[in-house]
Amino acid sequence: MREKLWIIKIGGNVIDDSEGLTRFLERFGSLRGYKILVHGGGKIATRMAADLGIEAKMVDGRRITDEAMLRIVTMVYAGLTNKQLVADLQARGCNAVGLSGADGNSIRAIKRPVGAVDYGFVGDILPDSVDTDTIATFVNAGFVPVFSAITHDGHGQLLNTNADTIASALAIALSDRYATSLVYCFEKRGVLRDINDENSAIPEIRAGEFEQLKTSGVIADGMVPKLHNAFEAIGKGVSEVCIGHADDLHLLREQHFGTRLVR
Amino acid sequence: MREKLWIIKIGGNVIDDSEGLTRFLERFGSLRGYKILVHGGGKIATRMAADLGIEAKMVDGRRITDEAMLRIVTMVYAGLTNKQLVADLQARGCNAVGLSGADGNSIRAIKRPVGAVDYGFVGDILPDSVDTDTIATFVNAGFVPVFSAITHDGHGQLLNTNADTIASALAIALSDRYATSLVYCFEKRGVLRDINDENSAIPEIRAGEFEQLKTSGVIADGMVPKLHNAFEAIGKGVSEVCIGHADDLHLLREQHFGTRLVR
Repeated sequence: MREKLWIIKIGGNVIDDSEGLTRFLERFGSLRGYKILVHGGGKIATRMAADLGIEAKMVDGRRITDEAMLRIVTMVYAGLTNKQLVADLQARGCNAVGLSGADGNSIRAIKRPVGAVDYGFVGDILPDSVDTDTIATFVNAGFVPVFSAITHDGHGQLLNTNADTIASALAIALSDRYATSLVYCFEKRGVLRDINDENSAIPEIRAGEFEQLKTSGVIADGMVPKLHNAFEAIGKGVSEVCIGHADDLHLLREQHFGTRLVR
Repeated sequence: MREKLWIIKIGGNVIDDSEGLTRFLERFGSLRGYKILVHGGGKIATRMAADLGIEAKMVDGRRITDEAMLRIVTMVYAGLTNKQLVADLQARGCNAVGLSGADGNSIRAIKRPVGAVDYGFVGDILPDSVDTDTIATFVNAGFVPVFSAITHDGHGQLLNTNADTIASALAIALSDRYATSLVYCFEKRGVLRDINDENSAIPEIRAGEFEQLKTSGVIADGMVPKLHNAFEAIGKGVSEVCIGHADDLHLLREQHFGTRLVR
């Protein structure tokens, strides 16, 4: 039987809220079993860029990672944020090891091809991007990998990469070796039946119910692509995808955390 | 028999010289056997501080690491410099993993006690600072640890730590498990018999000859504490300490690299 492995992703909103982050780290540290943390960026990089007089470049509302911005996100995500998370987890007895995709060649990406838009130094994940040997070596030795959203191309170029995509790619690739549960912490308590009622989280959605919930309008807007990606991961071997609030992480083991998506 | 392990330290002068760094990485990547890289800072952190309008605080010519400066060195050393070195080594087929002392609790330091001077968030290394289990796990699995000069105190505090001291502490602690060779790359080709002649490097100095070379004035000024620390490491189990120029690293295996210090 494959051992269970949690891949837990926190977004910038958790990183930016120091009290919320402390609560989350307490819960993450206490979660038993194999686990991996993937963290997004937060506002520190944007602030740092502003303080350095570097303008954030946007095209059609999407951020462009030019050379100056790549330096900043590498410093902030892989340096400041990652090492502080690791030190905080170590203080809680959790044997964290902070990694970028370059470390141990764990996640190799390709620079996004220039099309209508040149996104700059942004990395796209391929099906063979994840070196599962490297990650299994860390996990099986008792370490808890903490991934920042920086990858490399194998030729010396670091790349800014979407943290949601990294978490999903890790869960899919590692599902050959572990029963992977992919957990997204976001600002709501799950997929809500009523968007105005935080207590209306749907406990479980099966792949077959997704279309119907879309048609009926229960799942709409930003949740559609989120859940589409989640069910795609499940189709590729991930055991379950859980979506909920970072504060509820302690409910994960008892399956009371947010919304659970299953095959 | 203990396997050989190279612990190689490069200073800021190598980091700041992009052509010199490329030459060094080529040579380091080609060095066969178990190896660890320890890197200092370079001028990027100082420049970054200036760009952010943060003043470098000095007392008696020694840098003070206040909170703002700690953030900067964490970003630059453990983020930018460390990840770029790792990506560059990966591009050369060297399976590097970038680490701070917080990662895997590999190097735990204590905040320097406040005496006549408060150095701020500076970490001092203790005899039991190095977690040799963690480092041996990485090394034996075929990874090449690349250490930045950032440690932690085990209670969530990151600390700025001298890179020479980290390299020495690693070599001493790991000498129980490996035949450790500690290699310092600096701006000269070794301990020079004639300070004005780059070709006058003394090939080998035995511990018993150190006093005599000091008395005769061959070893003077900054070299005295450097060699004192080196022989101290040898007294604590390190097989040899080599001091020379980063460009000469390819001569290490044939024992023609700079000056070799032995028992």
